[in-house]
Amino acid sequence: MLLAIPKSEYKERQQKFCEILTDKKCDGAVIFSVTDIFYLTGFHFHPTERPIGMFIDPELKFHLFLPALEHEHAEEYGIVDQVHSYPEYPGIRHPMEYMKELLIQFGFENKTVGYDSLGYGSPMGYRGQSIDQLISVKEFVSLKWVIEEMRYIKSANEIELIKESCRWGNLAHRLLQKYTKAGLSEIEITSKASMEATMAMIETLGAEYKPHGKTAYAIFRGQIGPESAFPHAVTQNLVLKKGDTLVTGAAADVYGYGSELERTMFVEEVSKEQEKYFQYMHEAQDVALAAIKPGVLYSSVEEAVQKYFKETGITELTSHHTGHNIGLLGHEAPFFDLGDDNEIKPGMVVTVEPGIYVRGIGGFRHSDTVLVTNDGIEMLTYYPRDIKSLIC
Amino acid sequence: MLLAIPKSEYKERQQKFCEILTDKKCDGAVIFSVTDIFYLTGFHFHPTERPIGMFIDPELKFHLFLPALEHEHAEEYGIVDQVHSYPEYPGIRHPMEYMKELLIQFGFENKTVGYDSLGYGSPMGYRGQSIDQLISVKEFVSLKWVIEEMRYIKSANEIELIKESCRWGNLAHRLLQKYTKAGLSEIEITSKASMEATMAMIETLGAEYKPHGKTAYAIFRGQIGPESAFPHAVTQNLVLKKGDTLVTGAAADVYGYGSELERTMFVEEVSKEQEKYFQYMHEAQDVALAAIKPGVLYSSVEEAVQKYFKETGITELTSHHTGHNIGLLGHEAPFFDLGDDNEIKPGMVVTVEPGIYVRGIGGFRHSDTVLVTNDGIEMLTYYPRDIKSLIC
Repeated sequence: MLLAIPKSEYKERQQKFCEILTDKKCDGAVIFSVTDIFYLTGFHFHPTERPIGMFIDPELKFHLFLPALEHEHAEEYGIVDQVHSYPEYPGIRHPMEYMKELLIQFGFENKTVGYDSLGYGSPMGYRGQSIDQLISVKEFVSLKWVIEEMRYIKSANEIELIKESCRWGNLAHRLLQKYTKAGLSEIEITSKASMEATMAMIETLGAEYKPHGKTAYAIFRGQIGPESAFPHAVTQNLVLKKGDTLVTGAAADVYGYGSELERTMFVEEVSKEQEKYFQYMHEAQDVALAAIKPGVLYSSVEEAVQKYFKETGITELTSHHTGHNIGLLGHEAPFFDLGDDNEIKPGMVVTVEPGIYVRGIGGFRHSDTVLVTNDGIEMLTYYPRDIKSLIC
Repeated sequence: MLLAIPKSEYKERQQKFCEILTDKKCDGAVIFSVTDIFYLTGFHFHPTERPIGMFIDPELKFHLFLPALEHEHAEEYGIVDQVHSYPEYPGIRHPMEYMKELLIQFGFENKTVGYDSLGYGSPMGYRGQSIDQLISVKEFVSLKWVIEEMRYIKSANEIELIKESCRWGNLAHRLLQKYTKAGLSEIEITSKASMEATMAMIETLGAEYKPHGKTAYAIFRGQIGPESAFPHAVTQNLVLKKGDTLVTGAAADVYGYGSELERTMFVEEVSKEQEKYFQYMHEAQDVALAAIKPGVLYSSVEEAVQKYFKETGITELTSHHTGHNIGLLGHEAPFFDLGDDNEIKPGMVVTVEPGIYVRGIGGFRHSDTVLVTNDGIEMLTYYPRDIKSLIC
């Protein structure tokens, strides 16, 4: 059972990134993206006011730059050549002054320097200079999407972790459905299901399991009854009623990787009208699943779904695209969107979730996590999709 | 019982922001910060690949700009003059093209335009142009810290919401302590305490309670036994042992506002050494609490604490500053830090949390949420701080 990315894979990712640097004629690079630093080094952290960054020096050594309070943590978990720290933010001497010194010490001056962002950014009260204000280089070269694009295609290990996430999301969802009952609060149902699934998860996986985000959970996010017509609602503390349309969500973090499982369910009974919209949504998802294959464009999947909606005469009930890549983040590029001309390739993991939203009745959306294979797709989520299985 | 900021207060905030715009000779402004948009309009959302922004036009009308799927939600909750939406991201026509059209339509060309950030930013696959690439203006004026600084001093309503957060954090922490036992997993203990506190919270507050973040919770974040020597650890799925030092955390979101309650606890027994470090930490917190008063600088509180650490000879066991403002975000500026020369003022809400970290033994840190009053402080968290009360 795989519960972490092995060290060798981080080394491979770093090797690949160094090849890209060479291709782009960069002597080194400075990276501030939290997700990309985790992807390349295994060092996971919650950003605060204290700046954190990574740099790859002209000898292609990997360095982490962080506050003193993260130093030992980084030494233990970060797969890098060196860890550097500064005392505190804002400090008597600003953290970026320490970074400046390091960049000079490791030979960045007068070199071609790649970067994803020119400075650290955080809403938590951080203010500071950008690297182009700190050092004088030959040229700064934007690498903004380079690591994101490395993350498009998942490795066998990443797929294993996503499958593990799907497994515990499935259990959380099963328990959510079991505890869903008219008269109960959404928070009560989701708390009970999430806790029970989490307990089963940690008892099964044992001490090796290290969550980087949420353990197993299942939620409604306020998508209950007529409120489910808001596609991205937040928890509303609503009480369920007989006949409510529900839109759910369930997953679990496994070493930073997630998945997406969403179902449209009904409390006790389904009206003819609810059934009609459910079937439209179900067919739209079938259309999308059939359209996904290697070699075609992301936009072509959305085109197929929109063609179905148009023929069915329900275009005005739709309000978002059909899905997105998923992995370290809940939404990752590319997107099943009319304007996305990326090509679908084997190893990509995507969500498939066309939705229909009917004022006064509710929202209708399933979401499944799907792996693109050499000749089509493999469903990674496996919860029943048919209406009979989804009446609570 | 106050569970939301009243509409009149949003109007007052907008009025104040408009006065600042006038002071800064801005004809209008474009704002992208999620937190600041919520602060000024009451519209709360989870940012994804789809750009969201706010603009204040030269007639000082407030506008929200967002994807179609958020339109009705914004019409219902956003306290603004107008809501505008675009179909989808990336779309056949990019969302920023729609924004460009709106900015032109509402008269931003050739005007002096304030901004917090020149473009929308999200790690979730967003790519797009910045506003200076879209429209031609007289001048762009950075307003980067203006709304953050408006948020420094809390209103009476904000303080009420933070107090409500403290109340449920206290219950969650009480239950955490009750369920803490050698042989149990941190996840089991924290799940049980959090769920039970959440249930009590929603049964007590009723349907009016709308969380924007986490309902009541209490956590260890892996700060268990020797691992607690890492000040900002993440959940490690550890099993508690007799004699472990624990560092906790508990709070609840109330309409976007949070609080911070942390305690150093011990499983069943305390060694002489653990007791020694606990007392140092306790005294350091007393020193910090005594140093906070209106009219002095944030840095002076840190100076007092560091003086205490130095005199006690334990400076090398410390690794972070004494605290920060808190409110809509878990960490907000200013900071109790040697390099922070902001003045402490009545109405500021701060955390007070000097910490000591001893390799092999553990971490020692209490955190309390404290209101600065006209003549000193009021403790908003009220959980016992003495060692006898904290042995589980």
